[in-house]
Amino acid sequence: MDYVKLNKSRHKVKNFDGKKIPTVDVKQIISAASLAPSAHNIQSWHFVIVESEEKREALLSEVDPGNHEQIKQAGAVIVLFSDTDLVERSRDIARLGAGELDDEQLLRFNSRYPQMYEGFEELHESNYLSINIGLVTMNLVLAIKNYGYESNIIMGFNRTQKVNEILEVEKRYRPELIIPLGNSEDKGKPSYRLPQSQIMEIR
Amino acid sequence: MDYVKLNKSRHKVKNFDGKKIPTVDVKQIISAASLAPSAHNIQSWHFVIVESEEKREALLSEVDPGNHEQIKQAGAVIVLFSDTDLVERSRDIARLGAGELDDEQLLRFNSRYPQMYEGFEELHESNYLSINIGLVTMNLVLAIKNYGYESNIIMGFNRTQKVNEILEVEKRYRPELIIPLGNSEDKGKPSYRLPQSQIMEIR
Repeated sequence: MDYVKLNKSRHKVKNFDGKKIPTVDVKQIISAASLAPSAHNIQSWHFVIVESEEKREALLSEVDPGNHEQIKQAGAVIVLFSDTDLVERSRDIARLGAGELDDEQLLRFNSRYPQMYEGFEELHESNYLSINIGLVTMNLVLAIKNYGYESNIIMGFNRTQKVNEILEVEKRYRPELIIPLGNSEDKGKPSYRLPQSQIMEIR
Repeated sequence: MDYVKLNKSRHKVKNFDGKKIPTVDVKQIISAASLAPSAHNIQSWHFVIVESEEKREALLSEVDPGNHEQIKQAGAVIVLFSDTDLVERSRDIARLGAGELDDEQLLRFNSRYPQMYEGFEELHESNYLSINIGLVTMNLVLAIKNYGYESNIIMGFNRTQKVNEILEVEKRYRPELIIPLGNSEDKGKPSYRLPQSQIMEIR
Protein backbone atom coordinates (compact mmCIF):
# COMPACT_ATOMS: atom_id res chain seq x y z
CA MET A 1 0.00 0.00 0.00
CA ASP A 2 1.05 3.59 -0.54
CA TYR A 3 2.94 4.80 2.53
CA VAL A 4 0.81 7.91 3.10
CA LYS A 5 -2.38 5.86 2.94
CA LEU A 6 -0.86 3.13 5.12
CA ASN A 7 0.34 5.62 7.72
CA LYS A 8 -3.06 7.34 7.84
CA SER A 9 -5.03 4.11 8.05
CA ARG A 10 -2.94 2.37 10.72
CA HIS A 11 -4.73 2.65 14.05
CA LYS A 12 -4.61 0.50 17.14
CA VAL A 13 -7.08 -2.40 17.06
CA LYS A 14 -7.71 -4.46 20.17
CA ASN A 15 -10.20 -7.04 18.94
CA PHE A 16 -9.50 -9.87 16.53
CA ASP A 17 -11.52 -12.69 14.97
CA GLY A 18 -9.53 -15.46 16.69
CA LYS A 19 -8.36 -17.07 13.43
CA LYS A 20 -4.67 -18.01 13.45
CA ILE A 21 -2.36 -16.12 11.09
CA PRO A 22 0.00 -18.37 9.06
CA THR A 23 3.47 -18.34 10.61
CA VAL A 24 4.97 -17.63 7.20
CA ASP A 25 3.13 -14.28 7.15
CA VAL A 26 4.42 -13.40 10.61
CA LYS A 27 7.96 -14.26 9.54
CA GLN A 28 7.70 -12.06 6.46
CA ILE A 29 6.29 -9.21 8.54
CA ILE A 30 9.23 -9.51 10.97
CA SER A 31 11.62 -9.58 8.04
CA ALA A 32 10.17 -6.29 6.73
CA ALA A 33 10.18 -4.73 10.20
CA SER A 34 13.82 -5.56 10.78
CA LEU A 35 14.86 -3.28 7.92
CA ALA A 36 14.43 -0.54 10.54
CA PRO A 37 17.59 1.37 11.39
CA SER A 38 19.24 0.89 14.79
CA ALA A 39 22.03 2.65 16.61
CA HIS A 40 25.38 1.44 15.22
CA ASN A 41 23.31 -1.10 13.27
CA ILE A 42 23.35 -3.29 16.39
CA GLN A 43 19.83 -4.63 15.68
CA SER A 44 19.30 -5.27 19.38
CA TRP A 45 15.79 -6.64 18.92
CA HIS A 46 14.64 -10.21 19.47
CA PHE A 47 11.21 -11.42 18.30
CA VAL A 48 9.42 -14.31 19.92
CA ILE A 49 6.34 -15.65 18.12
CA VAL A 50 4.13 -17.36 20.68
CA GLU A 51 2.69 -20.39 18.87
CA SER A 52 1.96 -22.59 21.87
CA GLU A 53 -1.53 -22.12 23.27
CA GLU A 54 -0.22 -23.10 26.70
CA LYS A 55 2.48 -20.44 26.61
CA ARG A 56 0.05 -17.81 25.37
CA GLU A 57 -2.24 -18.65 28.28
CA ALA A 58 0.64 -18.65 30.79
CA LEU A 59 1.80 -15.27 29.52
CA LEU A 60 -1.50 -13.74 30.67
CA SER A 61 -0.40 -14.10 34.29
CA GLU A 62 2.08 -11.28 33.62
CA VAL A 63 -0.30 -9.06 31.65
CA ASP A 64 -2.70 -6.39 33.00
CA PRO A 65 -6.22 -7.89 32.96
CA GLY A 66 -7.52 -5.19 30.60
CA ASN A 67 -5.20 -6.54 27.90
CA HIS A 68 -6.08 -10.24 28.20
CA GLU A 69 -8.91 -10.41 25.69
CA GLN A 70 -6.92 -9.00 22.76
CA ILE A 71 -4.09 -11.45 23.42
CA LYS A 72 -6.53 -14.37 23.57
CA GLN A 73 -8.27 -13.39 20.32
CA ALA A 74 -5.17 -12.44 18.32
CA GLY A 75 -4.22 -14.36 15.18
CA ALA A 76 -0.61 -14.25 16.36
CA VAL A 77 1.26 -12.86 19.35
CA ILE A 78 4.75 -11.41 19.14
CA VAL A 79 6.72 -10.68 22.30
CA LEU A 80 9.51 -8.27 21.56
CA PHE A 81 12.72 -8.34 23.59
CA SER A 82 15.95 -6.31 23.71
CA ASP A 83 19.34 -7.98 23.77
CA THR A 84 21.00 -6.58 26.90
CA ASP A 85 24.33 -8.26 26.07
CA LEU A 86 25.44 -5.65 23.58
CA VAL A 87 29.10 -6.66 23.83
CA GLU A 88 28.29 -10.20 22.79
CA ARG A 89 25.77 -9.08 20.17
CA SER A 90 28.36 -6.88 18.54
CA ARG A 91 30.74 -9.85 18.30
CA ASP A 92 27.89 -12.06 17.06
CA ILE A 93 27.32 -9.62 14.21
CA ALA A 94 31.01 -9.69 13.31
CA ARG A 95 30.93 -13.49 13.30
CA LEU A 96 27.64 -13.97 11.45
CA GLY A 97 28.24 -11.13 9.00
CA ALA A 98 31.87 -11.95 8.24
CA GLY A 99 31.08 -12.67 4.60
CA GLU A 100 29.26 -9.39 4.01
CA LEU A 101 30.99 -6.81 6.17
CA ASP A 102 34.19 -5.07 5.07
CA ASP A 103 37.33 -5.00 7.18
CA GLU A 104 36.56 -1.66 8.79
CA GLN A 105 33.05 -2.77 9.74
CA LEU A 106 34.38 -6.04 11.15
CA LEU A 107 36.88 -4.12 13.26
CA ARG A 108 34.07 -1.98 14.65
CA PHE A 109 31.82 -4.89 15.60
CA ASN A 110 34.71 -6.97 16.92
CA SER A 111 36.48 -4.33 18.90
CA ARG A 112 35.34 -0.69 18.86
CA TYR A 113 31.67 -1.23 19.66
CA PRO A 114 32.26 -3.84 22.40
CA GLN A 115 34.62 -1.35 24.08
CA MET A 116 31.99 1.39 23.74
CA TYR A 117 29.25 -0.83 25.17
CA GLU A 118 31.39 -1.76 28.15
CA GLY A 119 31.51 1.95 29.04
CA PHE A 120 27.73 2.46 28.84
CA GLU A 121 25.99 3.48 32.04
CA GLU A 122 22.82 1.59 32.97
CA LEU A 123 20.40 4.41 32.17
CA HIS A 124 22.08 5.20 28.88
CA GLU A 125 22.18 1.57 27.76
CA SER A 126 18.56 1.11 28.69
CA ASN A 127 17.49 4.12 26.62
CA TYR A 128 19.65 3.02 23.72
CA LEU A 129 17.84 -0.33 23.69
CA SER A 130 14.43 1.32 24.06
CA ILE A 131 14.95 3.70 21.14
CA ASN A 132 15.90 0.72 18.98
CA ILE A 133 12.76 -1.11 20.12
CA GLY A 134 10.63 1.90 19.21
CA LEU A 135 12.19 2.09 15.75
CA VAL A 136 11.55 -1.55 14.90
CA THR A 137 8.07 -1.55 16.46
CA MET A 138 6.86 1.32 14.28
CA ASN A 139 8.07 -0.54 11.22
CA LEU A 140 6.45 -3.72 12.55
CA VAL A 141 2.98 -2.20 12.93
CA LEU A 142 3.23 -0.63 9.47
CA ALA A 143 4.31 -3.98 7.98
CA ILE A 144 1.42 -5.72 9.78
CA LYS A 145 -1.12 -3.23 8.38
CA ASN A 146 0.44 -3.48 4.93
CA TYR A 147 -0.11 -7.25 5.07
CA GLY A 148 -3.81 -6.64 5.72
CA TYR A 149 -3.79 -7.34 9.45
CA GLU A 150 -4.51 -5.11 12.44
CA SER A 151 -2.44 -4.83 15.62
CA ASN A 152 -1.94 -3.19 18.96
CA ILE A 153 1.17 -2.43 21.02
CA ILE A 154 0.95 -3.52 24.65
CA MET A 155 3.14 -1.97 27.34
CA GLY A 156 0.84 -2.98 30.18
CA PHE A 157 2.55 -6.11 31.49
CA ASN A 158 5.29 -6.99 33.95
CA ARG A 159 8.52 -6.50 32.05
CA THR A 160 10.42 -8.99 34.18
CA GLN A 161 12.33 -12.21 33.67
CA LYS A 162 9.15 -14.08 34.55
CA VAL A 163 8.21 -13.52 30.90
CA ASN A 164 11.50 -15.15 29.86
CA GLU A 165 10.76 -18.13 32.09
CA ILE A 166 7.28 -18.60 30.64
CA LEU A 167 8.53 -18.37 27.06
CA GLU A 168 11.83 -20.17 27.68
CA VAL A 169 13.86 -17.26 26.39
CA GLU A 170 17.49 -16.64 27.41
CA LYS A 171 17.95 -14.19 30.26
CA ARG A 172 20.12 -11.88 28.17
CA TYR A 173 16.91 -10.69 26.49
CA ARG A 174 14.74 -8.08 28.22
CA PRO A 175 10.98 -8.13 27.55
CA GLU A 176 9.82 -4.85 26.04
CA LEU A 177 6.45 -5.04 24.30
CA ILE A 178 3.71 -7.50 23.36
CA ILE A 179 2.17 -7.09 19.92
CA PRO A 180 -1.06 -8.99 19.23
CA LEU A 181 -2.05 -9.00 15.54
CA GLY A 182 -4.76 -10.56 13.47
CA ASN A 183 -7.77 -10.18 11.25
CA SER A 184 -10.42 -7.77 12.43
CA GLU A 185 -13.46 -6.06 11.00
CA ASP A 186 -12.53 -3.19 13.27
CA LYS A 187 -10.10 -0.99 11.35
CA GLY A 188 -9.60 1.34 14.31
CA LYS A 189 -9.97 5.07 14.14
CA PRO A 190 -7.63 8.05 14.28
CA SER A 191 -6.49 8.93 17.80
CA TYR A 192 -6.36 12.53 18.94
CA ARG A 193 -3.20 14.32 17.90
CA LEU A 194 -1.82 17.48 19.47
CA PRO A 195 -1.84 20.48 17.13
CA GLN A 196 1.46 20.92 15.33
CA SER A 197 2.08 24.24 17.09
CA GLN A 198 2.29 22.23 20.33
CA ILE A 199 4.88 19.68 19.21
CA MET A 200 7.04 21.83 16.97
CA GLU A 201 9.23 24.89 17.30
CA ILE A 202 11.39 26.70 14.77
CA ARG A 203 14.69 28.10 15.97
CA MET B 1 5.59 5.45 -2.60
CA ASP B 2 4.57 1.86 -1.95
CA TYR B 3 5.49 0.98 1.64
CA VAL B 4 7.49 -2.15 0.76
CA LYS B 5 9.53 -0.23 -1.80
CA LEU B 6 9.94 2.70 0.60
CA ASN B 7 11.05 0.46 3.47
CA LYS B 8 13.56 -1.35 1.24
CA SER B 9 14.99 1.82 -0.27
CA ARG B 10 15.37 3.83 2.95
CA HIS B 11 19.01 3.75 4.00
CA LYS B 12 21.08 6.14 6.05
CA VAL B 13 22.65 8.94 4.02
CA LYS B 14 25.24 11.21 5.56
CA ASN B 15 26.00 13.61 2.73
CA PHE B 16 23.71 16.26 1.33
CA ASP B 17 23.89 18.90 -1.41
CA GLY B 18 23.67 21.85 0.97
CA LYS B 19 20.44 23.24 -0.57
CA LYS B 20 17.85 24.31 1.99
CA ILE B 21 14.61 22.32 2.15
CA PRO B 22 11.44 24.48 2.25
CA THR B 23 10.12 24.67 5.81
CA VAL B 24 6.65 23.74 4.57
CA ASP B 25 8.02 20.35 3.48
CA VAL B 26 9.62 19.77 6.87
CA LYS B 27 6.36 20.66 8.60
CA GLN B 28 4.41 18.23 6.45
CA ILE B 29 6.97 15.51 7.11
CA ILE B 30 6.65 16.09 10.86
CA SER B 31 2.88 16.00 10.54
CA ALA B 32 3.06 12.58 8.85
CA ALA B 33 5.59 11.30 11.39
CA SER B 34 3.42 12.29 14.33
CA LEU B 35 0.74 9.83 13.26
CA ALA B 36 3.00 7.29 14.99
CA PRO B 37 1.47 5.55 17.99
CA SER B 38 2.72 6.34 21.48
CA ALA B 39 2.12 4.83 24.90
CA HIS B 40 -1.26 6.04 26.22
CA ASN B 41 -1.27 8.36 23.19
CA ILE B 42 0.86 10.76 25.22
CA GLN B 43 2.77 11.94 22.10
CA SER B 44 5.76 12.84 24.23
CA TRP B 45 7.83 14.06 21.30
CA HIS B 46 8.91 17.63 20.58
CA PHE B 47 10.43 18.61 17.23
CA VAL B 48 12.75 21.58 16.85
CA ILE B 49 13.57 22.67 13.30
CA VAL B 50 16.88 24.50 13.36
CA GLU B 51 16.49 27.33 10.83
CA SER B 52 19.07 29.73 12.22
CA GLU B 53 22.54 29.26 10.75
CA GLU B 54 24.05 30.55 13.99
CA LYS B 55 22.18 27.99 16.07
CA ARG B 56 23.08 25.17 13.68
CA GLU B 57 26.73 26.17 14.00
CA ALA B 58 26.50 26.47 17.79
CA LEU B 59 24.90 23.03 18.01
CA LEU B 60 28.08 21.50 16.57
CA SER B 61 29.89 22.18 19.85
CA GLU B 62 27.77 19.39 21.39
CA VAL B 63 28.10 16.94 18.48
CA ASP B 64 30.82 14.32 17.92
CA PRO B 65 33.20 15.69 15.25
CA GLY B 66 32.52 12.78 12.90
CA ASN B 67 28.93 13.98 12.57
CA HIS B 68 29.64 17.66 11.87
CA GLU B 69 29.81 17.54 8.10
CA GLN B 70 26.37 15.97 7.58
CA ILE B 71 24.78 18.57 9.86
CA LYS B 72 26.51 21.41 8.00
CA GLN B 73 25.43 20.11 4.56
CA ALA B 74 21.87 19.12 5.47
CA GLY B 75 18.91 20.80 3.81
CA ALA B 76 17.22 20.91 7.21
CA VAL B 77 18.09 19.82 10.73
CA ILE B 78 15.54 18.48 13.20
CA VAL B 79 16.45 18.06 16.86
CA LEU B 80 14.05 15.68 18.53
CA PHE B 81 13.26 16.02 22.25
CA SER B 82 11.15 14.12 24.79
CA ASP B 83 8.78 15.88 27.12
CA THR B 84 9.89 14.80 30.60
CA ASP B 85 6.94 16.52 32.26
CA LEU B 86 4.45 13.77 31.53
CA VAL B 87 2.03 14.91 34.24
CA GLU B 88 1.75 18.33 32.65
CA ARG B 89 1.68 16.92 29.13
CA SER B 90 -1.23 14.69 30.01
CA ARG B 91 -3.17 17.69 31.31
CA ASP B 92 -2.13 19.71 28.24
CA ILE B 93 -3.69 17.04 26.04
CA ALA B 94 -6.92 17.16 28.05
CA ARG B 95 -7.00 20.93 27.67
CA LEU B 96 -6.04 21.15 24.00
CA GLY B 97 -8.10 18.15 22.95
CA ALA B 98 -11.21 19.03 24.96
CA GLY B 99 -13.29 19.44 21.81
CA GLU B 100 -12.31 16.07 20.35
CA LEU B 101 -11.90 13.72 23.31
CA ASP B 102 -14.86 12.01 24.95
CA ASP B 103 -15.54 12.21 28.68
CA GLU B 104 -13.74 8.98 29.52
CA GLN B 105 -10.65 10.05 27.58
CA LEU B 106 -10.69 13.45 29.26
CA LEU B 107 -10.86 11.80 32.65
CA ARG B 108 -7.83 9.68 31.76
CA PHE B 109 -5.68 12.59 30.60
CA ASN B 110 -6.83 14.86 33.43
CA SER B 111 -6.55 12.43 36.28
CA ARG B 112 -5.66 8.76 35.72
CA TYR B 113 -2.54 9.25 33.61
CA PRO B 114 -1.10 12.09 35.74
CA GLN B 115 -1.46 9.81 38.77
CA MET B 116 0.21 6.98 36.89
CA TYR B 117 3.09 9.20 35.74
CA GLU B 118 3.69 10.43 39.26
CA GLY B 119 4.38 6.82 40.25
CA PHE B 120 6.89 6.16 37.46
CA GLU B 121 10.43 5.34 38.53
CA GLU B 122 13.23 7.19 36.75
CA LEU B 123 14.46 4.24 34.69
CA HIS B 124 10.95 3.25 33.65
CA GLU B 125 9.97 6.77 32.66
CA SER B 126 13.15 7.19 30.69
CA ASN B 127 12.50 3.99 28.73
CA TYR B 128 8.89 4.94 28.17
CA LEU B 129 10.02 8.21 26.59
CA SER B 130 12.72 6.48 24.54
CA ILE B 131 10.34 3.90 23.07
CA ASN B 132 8.04 6.74 22.01
CA ILE B 133 10.98 8.54 20.42
CA GLY B 134 11.92 5.40 18.50
CA LEU B 135 8.37 4.99 17.22
CA VAL B 136 8.10 8.54 15.89
CA THR B 137 11.64 8.55 14.48
CA MET B 138 11.02 5.47 12.33
CA ASN B 139 7.94 7.13 10.91
CA LEU B 140 9.91 10.34 10.44
CA VAL B 141 12.67 8.75 8.34
CA LEU B 142 10.06 6.93 6.24
CA ALA B 143 8.14 10.19 5.71
CA ILE B 144 11.38 11.97 4.76
CA LYS B 145 12.24 9.30 2.18
CA ASN B 146 8.67 9.33 0.87
CA TYR B 147 9.05 13.07 0.28
CA GLY B 148 12.10 12.40 -1.87
CA TYR B 149 14.73 13.38 0.69
CA GLU B 150 17.45 11.37 2.42
CA SER B 151 18.28 11.39 6.14
CA ASN B 152 20.38 10.05 8.95
CA ILE B 153 19.70 9.55 12.67
CA ILE B 154 22.42 10.91 14.95
CA MET B 155 22.85 9.66 18.51
CA GLY B 156 26.46 10.80 18.73
CA PHE B 157 26.09 14.07 20.64
CA ASN B 158 25.90 15.26 24.23
CA ARG B 159 22.31 14.71 25.26
CA THR B 160 22.41 17.44 27.90
CA GLN B 161 20.58 20.66 28.65
CA LYS B 162 23.38 22.50 26.84
CA VAL B 163 21.46 21.61 23.68
CA ASN B 164 18.35 23.26 25.19
CA GLU B 165 20.36 26.39 25.97
CA ILE B 166 21.75 26.63 22.45
CA LEU B 167 18.33 26.15 20.86
CA GLU B 168 16.41 28.11 23.51
CA VAL B 169 14.16 25.17 24.30
CA GLU B 170 12.38 24.75 27.65
CA LYS B 171 14.17 22.54 30.15
CA ARG B 172 11.24 20.16 30.44
CA TYR B 173 12.33 18.73 27.06
CA ARG B 174 15.17 16.19 26.92
CA PRO B 175 17.31 16.08 23.77
CA GLU B 176 17.14 12.64 22.14
CA LEU B 177 18.26 12.58 18.51
CA ILE B 178 19.42 14.86 15.71
CA ILE B 179 18.05 14.15 12.24
CA PRO B 180 19.74 15.89 9.31
CA LEU B 181 17.83 15.57 6.04
CA GLY B 182 18.19 16.87 2.54
CA ASN B 183 18.72 16.21 -1.11
CA SER B 184 21.48 13.82 -2.02
CA GLU B 185 22.65 11.92 -5.03
CA ASP B 186 23.71 9.24 -2.58
CA LYS B 187 20.72 6.99 -2.00
CA GLY B 188 22.57 4.92 0.61
CA LYS B 189 22.82 1.17 0.52
CA PRO B 190 21.38 -1.70 2.52
CA SER B 191 23.14 -2.28 5.84
CA TYR B 192 23.97 -5.78 7.01
CA ARG B 193 21.06 -7.53 8.69
CA LEU B 194 21.34 -10.51 11.01
CA PRO B 195 19.78 -13.70 9.61
CA GLN B 196 16.20 -14.15 10.75
CA SER B 197 17.13 -17.29 12.68
CA GLN B 198 19.23 -15.05 14.92
CA ILE B 199 16.53 -12.51 15.79
CA MET B 200 13.49 -14.75 15.96
CA GLU B 201 12.29 -17.71 17.99
CA ILE B 202 9.03 -19.62 17.90
CA ARG B 203 7.64 -20.80 21.23
